[in-house]
Amino acid sequence: MRHARVIAAGQYQDVTVEGEYVVTAAGHRHRLEEVTWLPPVQAGTILALALNYGDHATELNLERPEQPALFPKFRNALVGHLGTVVRPRGVEFMHYENELAVIIGRSARRVKAADAMAYVKGYTIFNDLVVRDFVINHFRPPVKPKNFDTFGPIGPWWVDAADIEDPHNLEITTYVNGELRQRGNTRDMLFRIPEIIEYVSEFMTLEENDILCTGTPKGISHIRPGDVMELHIEGIGMLKNRVVAEETLLEEAARLEVSQ
Amino acid sequence: MRHARVIAAGQYQDVTVEGEYVVTAAGHRHRLEEVTWLPPVQAGTILALALNYGDHATELNLERPEQPALFPKFRNALVGHLGTVVRPRGVEFMHYENELAVIIGRSARRVKAADAMAYVKGYTIFNDLVVRDFVINHFRPPVKPKNFDTFGPIGPWWVDAADIEDPHNLEITTYVNGELRQRGNTRDMLFRIPEIIEYVSEFMTLEENDILCTGTPKGISHIRPGDVMELHIEGIGMLKNRVVAEETLLEEAARLEVSQ
Repeated sequence: MRHARVIAAGQYQDVTVEGEYVVTAAGHRHRLEEVTWLPPVQAGTILALALNYGDHATELNLERPEQPALFPKFRNALVGHLGTVVRPRGVEFMHYENELAVIIGRSARRVKAADAMAYVKGYTIFNDLVVRDFVINHFRPPVKPKNFDTFGPIGPWWVDAADIEDPHNLEITTYVNGELRQRGNTRDMLFRIPEIIEYVSEFMTLEENDILCTGTPKGISHIRPGDVMELHIEGIGMLKNRVVAEETLLEEAARLEVSQ
Repeated sequence: MRHARVIAAGQYQDVTVEGEYVVTAAGHRHRLEEVTWLPPVQAGTILALALNYGDHATELNLERPEQPALFPKFRNALVGHLGTVVRPRGVEFMHYENELAVIIGRSARRVKAADAMAYVKGYTIFNDLVVRDFVINHFRPPVKPKNFDTFGPIGPWWVDAADIEDPHNLEITTYVNGELRQRGNTRDMLFRIPEIIEYVSEFMTLEENDILCTGTPKGISHIRPGDVMELHIEGIGMLKNRVVAEETLLEEAARLEVSQ
């Protein structure tokens, strides 16, 4: 089953997705194109893995990590399907990263890999956006390059873990303006989901709706204002977001102020 | 005024602190020693600064950062005043870090340093605990070394910004088992609070109850099971926590299982 959070008929609603409709808890149906998509869960802690596909590490000229290389994404970054992504002023290298996101289902601490999948409630698509201009200094966490507002599109929905036969065999494809830019498969993760959960839960408690973003395969490329990113993951769906320039937003805001 | 969240008379309560009492919204008074202290705000995003005091950078043999060096603390790490801090199995170098924590009061984006203090609602004390064994690789964020469960004691209360005349002139002292181990003053921050808020809010929106931990001065030292840490910051108060060994907790948990 697919689960989402949307604004429908002017209200925030938890819904399921059935064919061309979302269905509310009260049984009301709304066409998919009539709703506004929110991040599909109220996310807690979000941890992402750097360099978790060997071919992506190679394209960045970086070594494969010996342990899961974790960094944070914060709540200010989250936007839903079809939400606007803002390209910051004055940056050069802004990249999408299409990633399978694992949603934790219950409190997990000191969980062994063999038991870890029982703590996963579902999967969604995460666009781990980054301004690589600011990653030149690897001394410290990529907090800034990865956490501009809108740098974490997620959704459109999450899919029950039971509906994904093998999360380590899903095609990942990313299109920009309709052109195929990134292709990979979750089978090529360096650290697989059970290992990641074992590693993280060894030192910290993961709670329901905490999210683990499992890294991106080879195929990053520059995105520019006006670009439309479509991130597909097999068995889940497609997450689509358009890029606008920060300058454009600021100009609009200034116009609104003047006209008031 | 001092604000806290406590468990009193079996209930979670928002209280103010007056002399030897906490006072609930309904006007009930409880003696300080009768309550259980929770983190004083329901924290959102928590960003901490590495190496924000020159003498601390020197004691670690590290260079002063050219920009605020940010890393995350996550919600699993938080514990209140008098809460137990767990020293993980098998680690060697575990250190307290006494830090002035700035609590954001309202949505802040693209805020200039000159305006920044108006976005601060108050201050508290944060113990930015770390296992330095795991910080040897500076390639990636100190997520693991800084985010073991219980590695973020905070409190006991937060103090209104208006009650702190100058947050950049507060004595910081830390005692372990009654012995003075760390002494500094917030005047020696490399990046001051307005600059930090300008830097962070330039790329991300800070929301109410997001927290900025402003770094620790020189004076780290090893802590061991049984140690009692007392972190004082002038004008705020004292945050006290005792350290227990993870082994001890696991043995107790095993005994409980056996006896059931």
